[in-house]
Amino acid sequence: MAVEKTMDKIVALCKNRGFVFPGSDIYGGLANSWDYGPLGVEFKNNVKKAWWKKFVQESPYNVGLDCAILMNPQVWHASGHLGGFSDPLMDCKECKTRYRADKLVEDYMTEQGAEVAVADGWSDEEYKSYIEEHGIVCPKCGKLNFTDIRKFNLMFKTFQGITEDSQNEIYLRPETAQGIFVNFKAVQRTTRKKVPFGIAQIGKSFRNEITPGNFIFRIREFEQMELEFFCKLGEDLEWFGYWKNYCINFLKNLGMKDDNLRYRDHGEEELSFYSNATTDIEYLFPFGWGELWGIADRTDYDLKKHAEHSGTDMSYLDPTTNEKYVPYCIEPSLGADRVALAFLVDAYDEEELEKDTRTVMRFHPALAPFKAAVLPLSKKLSEKAEEVYAVLSKKFNIDFDVTGSIGKRYRRQDEIGTPYCITVDFDTLEDNAVTIRDRDTMEQTRLSIDELVKFIEEKIEF
Amino acid sequence: MAVEKTMDKIVALCKNRGFVFPGSDIYGGLANSWDYGPLGVEFKNNVKKAWWKKFVQESPYNVGLDCAILMNPQVWHASGHLGGFSDPLMDCKECKTRYRADKLVEDYMTEQGAEVAVADGWSDEEYKSYIEEHGIVCPKCGKLNFTDIRKFNLMFKTFQGITEDSQNEIYLRPETAQGIFVNFKAVQRTTRKKVPFGIAQIGKSFRNEITPGNFIFRIREFEQMELEFFCKLGEDLEWFGYWKNYCINFLKNLGMKDDNLRYRDHGEEELSFYSNATTDIEYLFPFGWGELWGIADRTDYDLKKHAEHSGTDMSYLDPTTNEKYVPYCIEPSLGADRVALAFLVDAYDEEELEKDTRTVMRFHPALAPFKAAVLPLSKKLSEKAEEVYAVLSKKFNIDFDVTGSIGKRYRRQDEIGTPYCITVDFDTLEDNAVTIRDRDTMEQTRLSIDELVKFIEEKIEF
Repeated sequence: MAVEKTMDKIVALCKNRGFVFPGSDIYGGLANSWDYGPLGVEFKNNVKKAWWKKFVQESPYNVGLDCAILMNPQVWHASGHLGGFSDPLMDCKECKTRYRADKLVEDYMTEQGAEVAVADGWSDEEYKSYIEEHGIVCPKCGKLNFTDIRKFNLMFKTFQGITEDSQNEIYLRPETAQGIFVNFKAVQRTTRKKVPFGIAQIGKSFRNEITPGNFIFRIREFEQMELEFFCKLGEDLEWFGYWKNYCINFLKNLGMKDDNLRYRDHGEEELSFYSNATTDIEYLFPFGWGELWGIADRTDYDLKKHAEHSGTDMSYLDPTTNEKYVPYCIEPSLGADRVALAFLVDAYDEEELEKDTRTVMRFHPALAPFKAAVLPLSKKLSEKAEEVYAVLSKKFNIDFDVTGSIGKRYRRQDEIGTPYCITVDFDTLEDNAVTIRDRDTMEQTRLSIDELVKFIEEKIEF
Repeated sequence: MAVEKTMDKIVALCKNRGFVFPGSDIYGGLANSWDYGPLGVEFKNNVKKAWWKKFVQESPYNVGLDCAILMNPQVWHASGHLGGFSDPLMDCKECKTRYRADKLVEDYMTEQGAEVAVADGWSDEEYKSYIEEHGIVCPKCGKLNFTDIRKFNLMFKTFQGITEDSQNEIYLRPETAQGIFVNFKAVQRTTRKKVPFGIAQIGKSFRNEITPGNFIFRIREFEQMELEFFCKLGEDLEWFGYWKNYCINFLKNLGMKDDNLRYRDHGEEELSFYSNATTDIEYLFPFGWGELWGIADRTDYDLKKHAEHSGTDMSYLDPTTNEKYVPYCIEPSLGADRVALAFLVDAYDEEELEKDTRTVMRFHPALAPFKAAVLPLSKKLSEKAEEVYAVLSKKFNIDFDVTGSIGKRYRRQDEIGTPYCITVDFDTLEDNAVTIRDRDTMEQTRLSIDELVKFIEEKIEF
């Protein structure tokens, strides 16, 4: 029987076991902000490390970058974020509730049974007339009496320097991508990379969404993992296919289930005007299919915009052919929090055993917060157990758990997804060996302490 | 002969080799913001990983945390940042230049030959009368005609939600520490840790300094590595000593030179009113001794303030003695950018050889951006060299360099601190072995390809 995975269960486990806490909780929180607890920070770091390993370290094409969150506002003029990065908002005149017009339309489409409900990038007029034609009412009071649509820019504004005037107005970046474009020449010059090559970045971005929600799926302060891959015009669609494939394999190699993943190509009308092709990798969350990874062929749009606004030559000189051109760019863009949520959901399992039910987070060992837990069978074995802990913790993040029966400790480790429990018993003092219990099969084997590091190293590889 | 290390040399190397670029450079920059380039992001990540390994992974006491940058403003009321976290500013009435009064006084003290020039936390009156008594004039125009001192809060303000009114006013955190205090109970509850234990966090903080400077030494957007270590009253000074020692050993174990490090204890008058003891670990930068690591016994001040403002009981119940108390707290607080700069300065070397001079970054292998560079001696050896790269890059960040003579490539790798150059030559095709050249000794040895991973693994351990 399939396990019923609900958001409530996931959120409760995250809060109770220290994966994710509501932000500023003792002060009543701050709308939809979240803090990663002791297990969450390890887990999310593992997700980021896995991405960096596959997209930077092992890739012969890509290099990394880490730009400041605060950038010169000219960047956002050039990128179009100051002009166009806004939500279409309207209020119900009756009950004063505020809505995003696109969300209202999409929710209506979903209710009507549309498989794909997308109303992105419409004009204000299109939203207004769709709402009126279909008689979409206020979800709260049931009336149809909305104000006109106004645009609300999603960038957080702040002030640098000591006066709050428009001269010092700057913004928290709404995406990490622009830092990559702005540094394109500096990176190419210093690394002497030849096209095709990519620049990868992990970092926080901020969007002042009026309707964040679904736990860490949509948050105002979030972390992105973005790659901008520069190639030659004409080779762009081939590379687009390459990265589509590379990205979905990344997820599958880390254990994400096929059935919960799908591609969704953007249709003609949904596609940004500058994009040659865009595909989302979607994940089946408990609340439905949601975008996980956006992979876009952005053509030469971004580099050309920055060349235009900054006066910097953004072209690349091919050293073999002497050809000079502005490269095309493929962008696979992923939210670290969102993919962490997908891995949490995917790993969640409840297994009925003879006497009880156990909750198991079936993380890939590379993602598990603890790679193993050291469990001394008796307090008298603490010293030996601490020795084992000291050896292993030089290499891995390891838990040390002395409280409660072994059975209870196994259940606790199952629930936080620890792949191996290492029990130190009285025989250990004689044979220098321990019992290793596998999280998924619950099978136990005996292994020499000297072989533990190698055993775990092999298991966490991917 | 000692090498003359100047900031100009360090900054130029960082910019030319891709460690650190000026932020938003193609748009004329954004005052004192910096972007980490392909080598810089690896280097800084290595510094952060080293800290996490020693302060979280290997520590039986500490666990990690990763809180949101945006917090409920009540946090900053409780912590005192909204009331007191400000700079004393004054303008020269003659030439309109703006100054920090404390900086003016400290610069004057240094000029007068004071070994330790600290004018921190004085009252406005104290600054004003010191300046007048000592006849400190405007460094720009030479007049003594300043305005009164006004306080300027250092927190970046922004607005959450869709109107810019005070109800939605929030701040970018000026330190990561408060996120730890606010989550103290949640972390203790979910980890079931017993006092003494610590909570560690790495993350960005923001301070609207009017005088940032000295490259990445003082920047507005910076990254902190903070530990809050909770212990029992009466045991606090012992733990204070423990962490002082632990922190300086961390730096020394990563190769930082003894001569460039010193402790500086805060005297009675410099000490915050709630602190039992505070010591800075200082580093000898090219511009003089500068604070690297602040280690403070903060008593129970922070937890009590949050208990008072939030109404949450912040006390800890000792399960053995049934004693209930608010723990004391030791805070070792370190800036990731600042310690990265110290490691850069410390590693910089120029070595005179027979025919020329080489620049070498003598990083500890654990910190080096690339652990090794694979250099095929001829284009005909590319395939074999790529094989070696593929094996090593599964484990480490590895460079692959085919351009120029071997001698030139060695120099290039010396300048970015790569500890090992691996040359693939025609013999390699026969004996499956390579030549390894050591960055520091320039000695070359022959090693089987099968032994490379183990060789590097041992070298980067610390």
